[in-house]
Order: sequence, then C-alpha cells, then structure tokens
Amino acid sequence: MIEIVSIGAELLTGQTVNTNASVIAKALLKRGFGISHVTTVPDHHNPMKKAIEEAMSRASVVITTGGLGPTGDDITRSTLAEIFESELVHDAKVATELEKRYGKDLETLADQATVIKGAHVIPNPIGTAPGFILKKGEKTVIVLPGAPVQMQEMLEKSVIPYLEETHKRHLFQHAVYLFLMSEQHVDPFLRAMEEKHPKVEFGVCPSYGTLSIYLRAHAESQDEAEERFAPILFALREKFKHRIFSEKYHDIEYAVHEQFIARGLTLACAESCTGGRIAARLTKISGCSDYFLGSLVTYSNQMKTSVLNVNPETLHAHGAVSRETVIEMVQGTLSVSGADYAVAVSGITGPTGGTQEKPVGTVWGAIGHKKGDVFAGLLSLKGTRKRSTLIEYSATYLLSHLWRYIQFDIPPFEES
Amino acid sequence: MIEIVSIGAELLTGQTVNTNASVIAKALLKRGFGISHVTTVPDHHNPMKKAIEEAMSRASVVITTGGLGPTGDDITRSTLAEIFESELVHDAKVATELEKRYGKDLETLADQATVIKGAHVIPNPIGTAPGFILKKGEKTVIVLPGAPVQMQEMLEKSVIPYLEETHKRHLFQHAVYLFLMSEQHVDPFLRAMEEKHPKVEFGVCPSYGTLSIYLRAHAESQDEAEERFAPILFALREKFKHRIFSEKYHDIEYAVHEQFIARGLTLACAESCTGGRIAARLTKISGCSDYFLGSLVTYSNQMKTSVLNVNPETLHAHGAVSRETVIEMVQGTLSVSGADYAVAVSGITGPTGGTQEKPVGTVWGAIGHKKGDVFAGLLSLKGTRKRSTLIEYSATYLLSHLWRYIQFDIPPFEES
Repeated sequence: MIEIVSIGAELLTGQTVNTNASVIAKALLKRGFGISHVTTVPDHHNPMKKAIEEAMSRASVVITTGGLGPTGDDITRSTLAEIFESELVHDAKVATELEKRYGKDLETLADQATVIKGAHVIPNPIGTAPGFILKKGEKTVIVLPGAPVQMQEMLEKSVIPYLEETHKRHLFQHAVYLFLMSEQHVDPFLRAMEEKHPKVEFGVCPSYGTLSIYLRAHAESQDEAEERFAPILFALREKFKHRIFSEKYHDIEYAVHEQFIARGLTLACAESCTGGRIAARLTKISGCSDYFLGSLVTYSNQMKTSVLNVNPETLHAHGAVSRETVIEMVQGTLSVSGADYAVAVSGITGPTGGTQEKPVGTVWGAIGHKKGDVFAGLLSLKGTRKRSTLIEYSATYLLSHLWRYIQFDIPPFEES
Repeated sequence: MIEIVSIGAELLTGQTVNTNASVIAKALLKRGFGISHVTTVPDHHNPMKKAIEEAMSRASVVITTGGLGPTGDDITRSTLAEIFESELVHDAKVATELEKRYGKDLETLADQATVIKGAHVIPNPIGTAPGFILKKGEKTVIVLPGAPVQMQEMLEKSVIPYLEETHKRHLFQHAVYLFLMSEQHVDPFLRAMEEKHPKVEFGVCPSYGTLSIYLRAHAESQDEAEERFAPILFALREKFKHRIFSEKYHDIEYAVHEQFIARGLTLACAESCTGGRIAARLTKISGCSDYFLGSLVTYSNQMKTSVLNVNPETLHAHGAVSRETVIEMVQGTLSVSGADYAVAVSGITGPTGGTQEKPVGTVWGAIGHKKGDVFAGLLSLKGTRKRSTLIEYSATYLLSHLWRYIQFDIPPFEES
C-alpha cells in the first residue's frame, strides 16, 4: 500500500487545493498502484513528523510533497533526517548541477544543495529543490517538492520507474464516461452488477454533466483485471450505448477533438453566457487548431450585431437570451468562420440578471451545420443555480449534444 | 482545533480533487477557525472508523464529508453510529420533508430518511442526504455530504453558525496578492519581518504569475490579529507598492473587474493562444457585463482576418505570432467592439508547433486604448513550457499589465 503525506500550511487554509495528491494518485493508478490514505499537515515539525511516522506504520511506501524550498518554513528535510536518524549534508554533485543551471550567484544554492545523508537523490530537472528516496527496513519514503510542475516531472521521470522496478502492481481501474446522466439512472444497474461480480469494486461520480463509472480490481496484472471487467463492460456498453462518449477521457471536449479531427471537420462557436469557457476547454488540448477555428465571445449586444451579424431587431423583439438570437448567432458564426459546424449559447447564469420570465438558469443553445440545418433548444439544467456550475454544465451540455449529433445522428436538444 | 476527514474512493484514485477540504478550510478561516489536519480515506469501514477516531483524539471538532448518499458504498452513517455507540433510525420529519420536495416515489426515500439516533440533523436544502452533528463529551463530529454544492450550502447555512455559537475563534489571516513576482523577490524581506514579529506566521505561495503573502496569527479576535499585522502590512505596501493588486482577491481578474467598473471603462479582447481563457476568467465574475464586451477567440488565420480585419499580408510576412499581428488584433478589436481598452494575445503554447525561431513559450501581447496608444511586447514567461501553465500565465500577465497601466500609468510590457 502507498500513502501520501501532503505538507504545507496553505493546504490547510484552503488557499491551495491539494491537486498534487490527485495527480500522484491518478498517475500511480494508471500503473497499477493504489493510494490508501492521504494526510495533509502543516509545515510544522511535530504534526509533520507524526503524520509521516503514522503513514510508515500503515503503508510500505510513503510519498511526501512540499516543504523542500529554501524559505524559512521549509523543514521537511530536517524532519526526515530525524525520522531516519540521519543528518543533513552538503552534496557537491547537486551544487555543481545547480550552478551549471542557475549560476554561482543563486542565493539559495547552499540551502538547496543540502541533502539527507544516505538518501538517494531524485534530480529536479526544472527547479532547485531535489527530491529523495529513503529506506528503512521494508519501508520507503519518497520525498518530492510541492511545486506542482516540478513534482509531476520528478514523479514521471524518477518515482514511477523506481516503483515499477521495486514494487508489485496491485490495483487496476477501468473507467467509462457518460454524458448528461445522473447517479440514479445507473445505480440499479450497477447494484445488480455488483452482486454478480463481487471481486470488482464499483464507483460512480457525477460532475457537471459528466457521469464517471469506475471498475476497480485488485489483481496481479492489467490483463487479469480486464478479464474480470469484460462482462460488466459488455453489459454497460449495451445498456448505455448512446450515452458513453469515452472510456479514456473524462472530459467531453477530448471526444469532440478526436471526432472532428478523425472526420476532417471544423468547428467554431459563439458564446455569450459561457464567456469563453467552451473555447477554453477545447483549446486546452494540444492540436486543436486542426479543427477548432475560434469562438466569438460576444457578451454585449453590440458585438452580437457587429461580429455575428445578429439583427438588432431580433435582439429587441426577443432579447439576447432567446431561440431567435442563438439561431442567428450560429448562422453568423458559420458565415464569418467558414466552419462546418457551429455552436452558440446565450443565457442567464446569475446570480443577478434573472427575471420572472427568464429566471437564472435559462440558457438557450443552438447547433448548426453549414449546409443549413440549425437546431435550437432550451438546455435542461436541473438542480443548482450557481453561476460557475451553470457555465460548466452549459458547456458540457452543448459539447455532448454536438458530439452525439455527429456520432449517432441524434438531433441536438432532444432528450433520449 | 478542527480537523477534516474526507471520505471517498474517488478522492484516492485522483478522479476527484479534494476541493471540499479547501472550501471548508477557507470558509472557516474567514470566521477565525483554523484546520489543523486533513485525512482522506476510502469509503470502507475500517480505515474510515480509524481515521475519524484518530481525528477525534487530536481535535475537539471533526468535520467529515462524503459517504452519505443512497448508493451501496455510502457507509458513513453506520460507521458513525458505531463510533457513537448509537443506532440508525427512521426520521419521520426528514421523510416528510423529502416527500414534499421529491414526491412519494423517490426510490431512495427510506434510505435518506435514516438518521443516527441522538444526532442533531442538519437539513440539506438542495439534496437528499441530511447531515449530522454528533457530540460525545468535549468532542463534536459534524457530518456532511460529499457533493460540493450541497456541502457548501449546509456549511454556510448550518455549520458555521453552529461553530460561531459554540466554539471560540482562534486563528486569523490577512492576505496580500502581488502579480508577476517570484518567491525569491519577497523572501529576504519576509524573513526580516518574521524575526521582528515572532507572533505572526508568514506564508508565501506562488501560482501562475500571482504571488500570495499570508500573515496569520492566533488571537482572540480579528481586531487583535489585525493590530499585530498592521506594521508588517505598512512595510509591505510601501515596499511592493506597484505590485500589490489586492488584499481581498487572489485573482487579478477581480481587480480588473473592480477597476473597470469604478472608472466606467469598457474592455474587449482578442485571444489566439489563450483560447478564451482570459474571457472565461473575466466572465466567471457576476456583473462583468457592466464593462466586459467580449473576446474574439480567433484561432484560425482566416478568422483573424474576417473578424479582426488583420491584414493577410501581415500574417504572411510576420506570422500569426508576431508584434505586427497582435497590434492589428488590438486595433481590430477596438474597432469592432467600440471598447475603451483592448487586449490581444498570440503565441505558441505547445507542446507542438514550436520552431527554432519561435519556440514553445513565445507569446506576443498587445494592449491598446481607443485613442490610439497601442503597446506590444513579448511576454516574459520564465520557467515551465507546459501548455496549461503557459495559457494561465499569459492570461495573468496580460491582465496584470493592463491593470497596472490603468492604475499607475506604467506602460505595459515594461519590467518594473
């Protein structure tokens, strides 16, 4: 078993979200290693020491992050030296490497070249703080910096290869991602499956319009686990045929990305209430310029007219949040971008701006093809009326209906 | 002291980031309550029971999240009933309330109306799973569901008022946010301050171009803490005058939002490599339509021309990633939007698409005013070359320089 000890006062004040723990857990699970426990403690000697020792008493491998920098509150090294009854010493090799990269004037050089005696040093190719692997009997402690990009680099380059060589894989997972489904829709089916397959663990996790189903098994190899998953996956794929968009990516934008590129199609958007969120989600994926032409975030009515050629009379008669407006937005986008498909959205995400007739949560969407088919509909955004959720959910909703339309020829905005 | 126990297998596989712990920590710290420890365990009886009992042995208040839903893996209630030597019973009041909101056919009604005998029930106004407050001697355990929106609602409406009434405040924080500074720039100053003010705890946290400095103190009241912070804040504000953009909001977009609205100005953007991220960050804030007109995410060259009127010859001669192109993008944006200020950005965020001449990380920005002043410059994006970091950092960089330009009349793209 592997545990994580996350170190840092900012993690306990809520200023920093503990993404490191998730990144490590995800990366390890991909290689067959499970995390059984995460402890977050401040960078103070006593709680840190106690947390690491307790983790070592439960697990054979403990990974710590944080507290390796040169600032005063970084005391992970000295605490670990104490736990391992070792001491801090100057490491000439680390110093030379730091000098080569940062010059002799690096103020923190002496500090960052201080290592735990007897530890295996993990090089940090993009920052100053090296990591460490410490061993005591059957127990291993792997010490990484807290800066996410550095941590991740060292995890992939050094820690995972080390674990793969020294430890046995034990946990495997297969995920299936569905759009616009709630937990209740799949629960009876999964409970039945669970009874039939006691050696498989089931997990369900809803998130802004995406429902993730996880199958997990303790096994010797990925193949052995997949064999146990196979009948369940077969039934799942059959039962939720038109709802499963991926067994690889959690986010619908990856499915859209692959679909558009595979089919040689292009896409452009016009966003009002989602404020660029659809574009930001699509463009976070490298290579998106192969199909994504752009998104016209027209927040003001004037820009809807000047950029998208929406008729001012339409805006006046029906309002910016209306079927008529989103249809004209799609048509304008198709025309100005030359794209094969266009998506448009306009709504009221609040908390202010709602009216009796158009309350917060009223979001109109349209999806169109350059040959002339344009579909428009009111998005069914059940539940929360929180601004960030409405934005996220609207983006997922539209990308899901776009993907489904192209994949299965199911008209957008129809419930299925 | 207060501890959090986060329950859920998905938190340990990395599928779900533990944002609940941060949300709770942040909300409590605002009211003078500190979190000393966070433990994350799977929804299995033994580790969950052990983690809650250990937390209870250290802290007077333990808040748990997760495992209250109707699905098979939700066993927090039964585990807590065991710890408190109580039992699960049907609660008619909860059942009536659920029936009123969801109808008699709610499949999970019987399950969700099952409560821990002797516990105070926390109503869940937007979901089905109620929460609980349990007491045993000096120890309090507060039990909340894992769904973030429900958890947050119950935290604000019930848990915080309860804690404020029953527990003494003990920890206070004051934050100062600076843009485009690294830890090393502030460290010597803060170390000197730390020596002079031993009753104040210092924290520094860099994040994509924003540097947060936190002052924390154990005190009886906010006033008492602020008194201790005052001389440090005075010195900080003096020393980093042109770098502090807020003492309230971590994100530069809030400062831009307030600045533009206070001055009655309007803003529009043209984004290429940031792909809508600038717009998405600005529009996440309610009320942004008072100053933000839109953002033209022109990913393709054709759209740079058709929407922003960038000269095809400029694109041909200098490329989309060039000083000349971003200047024309700003000019086009000002003209098509009628905004007072415009920001444009075009760059190579990789991992593919870099060349010898324009490697990944080459990002051009421009900031212009409708009266004709246009500034352009290469963003200095030191360090990482990771796509998501480059996008985030570019957005922060441009918003910071825009804010500084308007606030202090310092020309954008100049290092200060």
